[in-house]
Amino acid sequence: MTSSVLIIGSMAFDDLELPSGVFSDVVGGAATYAALAVSRSARARIVAVVGEDFPEAVLDDLGDRGIDTAGVERKKGKTFRWAGRYSSDLASRTTLDTQLNVFGEFRPRLPPSYRDSEFVLLANIHPALQLEVLDQVVRPRFVAADTMNFWIERERPTLLEVLRRVDTLVINDEELRQLAGEHSIRQAARTVRAMGPRRLVCKRGEFGAILFDDHGTFFAPPFLLEASIDPTGAGDTFAGALLGALASAPEFDAASLRRALLVAAATASFTVEGVGTHRLAEVTASEIAARSAEIERSLRTTL
Amino acid sequence: MTSSVLIIGSMAFDDLELPSGVFSDVVGGAATYAALAVSRSARARIVAVVGEDFPEAVLDDLGDRGIDTAGVERKKGKTFRWAGRYSSDLASRTTLDTQLNVFGEFRPRLPPSYRDSEFVLLANIHPALQLEVLDQVVRPRFVAADTMNFWIERERPTLLEVLRRVDTLVINDEELRQLAGEHSIRQAARTVRAMGPRRLVCKRGEFGAILFDDHGTFFAPPFLLEASIDPTGAGDTFAGALLGALASAPEFDAASLRRALLVAAATASFTVEGVGTHRLAEVTASEIAARSAEIERSLRTTL
Repeated sequence: MTSSVLIIGSMAFDDLELPSGVFSDVVGGAATYAALAVSRSARARIVAVVGEDFPEAVLDDLGDRGIDTAGVERKKGKTFRWAGRYSSDLASRTTLDTQLNVFGEFRPRLPPSYRDSEFVLLANIHPALQLEVLDQVVRPRFVAADTMNFWIERERPTLLEVLRRVDTLVINDEELRQLAGEHSIRQAARTVRAMGPRRLVCKRGEFGAILFDDHGTFFAPPFLLEASIDPTGAGDTFAGALLGALASAPEFDAASLRRALLVAAATASFTVEGVGTHRLAEVTASEIAARSAEIERSLRTTL
Repeated sequence: MTSSVLIIGSMAFDDLELPSGVFSDVVGGAATYAALAVSRSARARIVAVVGEDFPEAVLDDLGDRGIDTAGVERKKGKTFRWAGRYSSDLASRTTLDTQLNVFGEFRPRLPPSYRDSEFVLLANIHPALQLEVLDQVVRPRFVAADTMNFWIERERPTLLEVLRRVDTLVINDEELRQLAGEHSIRQAARTVRAMGPRRLVCKRGEFGAILFDDHGTFFAPPFLLEASIDPTGAGDTFAGALLGALASAPEFDAASLRRALLVAAATASFTVEGVGTHRLAEVTASEIAARSAEIERSLRTTL
């Protein structure tokens, strides 16, 4: 039986200024992207909060995909909102506005049915909330966490407590450098792993990702796209697909982790092909398998 | 017997503003870096021009390494000079000054002993000079070329003629996009290969390199350094080491090309560890082999 993946993270409305146009009220949030990605291979369970303005139809749609939304609380007020503007080459983005709204006073409470989750993804939220969720899971087999510059700067002691309790940290290279206080990715990875996580995955966007574990270093190449539309949520898709692939793997070992990273890269590439969750929501298992296979071929020195 | 690699390119003095200090009159130039890299595995033959100010001791040192400098002309005047300033993270650089000097009226003439060269590296120079060199080689087995934004903008027709006559183009991702007029690396690679080169190697600096050939795509990961000092010449080292490894391979096939890219990435990493050619000049064959092996391990999904 495939294990369940518990995801704590944001559900949100995003206002996106993209080279291809301006899009408002786009349903997003780390938990949404991650859950859609997990749902391709395992059972996703979301812990999140939404406001009165969040469409019931979106939650229904997630439910239709086998995603458990019992842990999604609906509170009085507005849903979390993020607004951002991307550069013309999509390589960088500026946050124009962040409105925490109902997310500001969120205290995650797990439905009893969630407590046996074997895989846990602590997506990018306040590290204190990441700890609260972790305290409520009975005996997780594998815990992965993401974070961001804001928490690295403002909540370092709490974040360090999270790091002592996770198996794998999944962050981008800028955050890795900031957390370690070192420019060299190699040195930074060593420093951060000494803080607790046995494994580190450094996400590098269009350049792929690097895994650092006890077996050395593994480069997961990106899937090279014909056209990129919207990178929002690609990192969350990557993390979700990674945990989904691990949860559905027959064994958890170094090889399955490496293959899961290729599936994660393949799945994330679909997210970038559409605005918001549009392309991710409609991608088929065989499309993901085809891109994973192409990425795996691009690693081979012999043909 | 190992084949010879003919290199046409600049020999230069560089003035470098690096995070680690300001360094003047550093011996550099594409041909110098490439020849040092080739010399680790094959016989390098340089075609270049230097001024009266270029130290004979440098040419003697290259000769002592088995590098043929019979094609290095010494002309009245000053040697080509480049001055640049790097950003604090070494990720970008600004050209402060370029003085062509004796390079301005250079017309390459190959010594008769060079004409049988099987491998040819047309490093970044005026495409008309690249063509002149190519015309003087009797029957090259493999021709690789580099270029830069300046020639892409100003000498496009001549550059397109070069592209029709080379096997492999080795350029960075910015140049690839500019040459193709497309942002997507995947689309740009297709467009540029349609211009002539059967293979394309896209250099991405600290992110590694991507080969596009008839067998698909291959990602050559970078060697992750503990500390980076000076990226000047890393791309030329990469191209030189690539041709050196191919020239010394028992066979020329898709697998040897892929392995040669790993050797190229390993060799280039040493260049970045010292100012100018300092570290590259002293690196041993076993140091290069160790880093190549580490890079190859970082591609494996099974251990």
